[in-house]
Amino acid sequence: MSIRSITILGCGALGLYYGSKLAKAGYNVKFLLRSDYNVIKNKGVKIYSIHGDFEIKINCFNDPLKCEVSDLVIIALKTTAKEYLLKTLPLLISSSSYVLTLQNGLKNEELINSVIDASKILGGIAFLCSVRKEPGVILHTAYGNIKANAFSKKCDNTILKEITDLFITSGINFEIADSLPTLKWEKLIWNVPFNGISASLGGVDTQKILNHPPLRKITEELMKEVILGAQANDIFLDNSLIKQNIDKTLNMGPYMTSMAIDRIKNNPIEVESIIGEPLRAANKKGIKLPYMEHLYAELSFYNENIIKK
Amino acid sequence: MSIRSITILGCGALGLYYGSKLAKAGYNVKFLLRSDYNVIKNKGVKIYSIHGDFEIKINCFNDPLKCEVSDLVIIALKTTAKEYLLKTLPLLISSSSYVLTLQNGLKNEELINSVIDASKILGGIAFLCSVRKEPGVILHTAYGNIKANAFSKKCDNTILKEITDLFITSGINFEIADSLPTLKWEKLIWNVPFNGISASLGGVDTQKILNHPPLRKITEELMKEVILGAQANDIFLDNSLIKQNIDKTLNMGPYMTSMAIDRIKNNPIEVESIIGEPLRAANKKGIKLPYMEHLYAELSFYNENIIKK
Repeated sequence: MSIRSITILGCGALGLYYGSKLAKAGYNVKFLLRSDYNVIKNKGVKIYSIHGDFEIKINCFNDPLKCEVSDLVIIALKTTAKEYLLKTLPLLISSSSYVLTLQNGLKNEELINSVIDASKILGGIAFLCSVRKEPGVILHTAYGNIKANAFSKKCDNTILKEITDLFITSGINFEIADSLPTLKWEKLIWNVPFNGISASLGGVDTQKILNHPPLRKITEELMKEVILGAQANDIFLDNSLIKQNIDKTLNMGPYMTSMAIDRIKNNPIEVESIIGEPLRAANKKGIKLPYMEHLYAELSFYNENIIKK
Repeated sequence: MSIRSITILGCGALGLYYGSKLAKAGYNVKFLLRSDYNVIKNKGVKIYSIHGDFEIKINCFNDPLKCEVSDLVIIALKTTAKEYLLKTLPLLISSSSYVLTLQNGLKNEELINSVIDASKILGGIAFLCSVRKEPGVILHTAYGNIKANAFSKKCDNTILKEITDLFITSGINFEIADSLPTLKWEKLIWNVPFNGISASLGGVDTQKILNHPPLRKITEELMKEVILGAQANDIFLDNSLIKQNIDKTLNMGPYMTSMAIDRIKNNPIEVESIIGEPLRAANKKGIKLPYMEHLYAELSFYNENIIKK
């Protein structure tokens, strides 16, 4: 076993959930916290999960230098925390460390590549519905599996196997995807319309979107555009994914997306990684995506204006 | 002179401004008021105008039956007040009355045609920047001219001349447009993007829109779509109108559109007449307008949800 230590960078609902599962399984997990440090250091973490509730005392740090390097850093930061990521990650890794990013959208691996060799980077998608109820208290309401793969072909295959075992033995359904870019674009079929529309409307749940026929129509148009954008980048996604994603979302009931929650809380939203990057990737190939462009214009305006507050 | 009496139906910033100008010129003008009746009956109207301030006591009614019929009814209601219009207008007209609607967007004349003969209807566009500061107090900050024409070819030409004189002698620049449909669609080049985007962002001024490059880009895309929608309906608008409208708006400084103000006040917005009708008119001709469709989806959702409050 080459991974003897794991750092969780980004301890929101996602990072705390997976990190606590790994810690509970007995792995050496360090959590680098910011706002919730004091509460969690004293009281630990409480996870209310569809797979069983548990409480755990975790190994907390609020100073990346004290946290020291780990063999694996799992990044669960919002993509809006770019500067913090670039400043902090170098303090947590050695030249032999691996980094697994579970962040939303595109170009996260490329950013990480500016501080660590491509062969050391893995990207993944977490299919997880979880929400931070208060400091140290996470509610996990649906799904929970992860799909991931190496960012570069130069990545050592044995590490993929080792990381898979790490998650599986912690009770997390973890699969190696066929292709990381395909995985990322496929997730965008859901993320672009539902995160985007829910946030552009000021924070509205997925059920309200699908119950309003004009919004349901643009949801489908946005999904078609993601498929077109992917295709322009040589990634082939089947049109049947549109119906699948709509049906899955209808079954989820009224679900508040992460971008909607950020908008309600007046936080920056992940508009660049989720909408700006796929839009630019399509535009670069000469493909115009009007619905996505409209969404991007509105949401990037929102982001600029809250940041200035 | 066949027009011996005029009723103003819809006494917001626009109706009160034009009505007061006509009354000041000595015409017999009756104002049918709702919320501001008591204040205006007691204190009259105060107009702060770039063309000169004035105060005037006006002939107010709050009961359409007491208002009786007039030879000309000028409709300055919001297009969201459809039901009130259909209920009230029949009480204000005889078979020889004329109706001039200065409402925004498309299909207003068609609606009025359900209660009065087409030959009696005129439609117009008011190029007016005015705002109601408090009951009976109107601030007029820019422009003020009206362009209008008959809704039907059966309209008596002498009445057009007479109405023109009525406005001109009241100090209002009033012109007969070449074609009413062209006039309406031309105004939509401005109304669709600026009203639509400013309202979709929760109430943002035109300068902020034009200063944000992605929003400026969709402003231009929406203008192109209006021109395409018009063209599909055999109305030819020159592409140079895009630059003209952008330049004019830049010169206006930070301007809060009527739809933005309605959104801020949590009022219904004129989404059907300004965006829904042109969108449907294009769709009927097989033309897809993605940017407009996106805007419509968001704003119609907003309207449905505030009405339910």
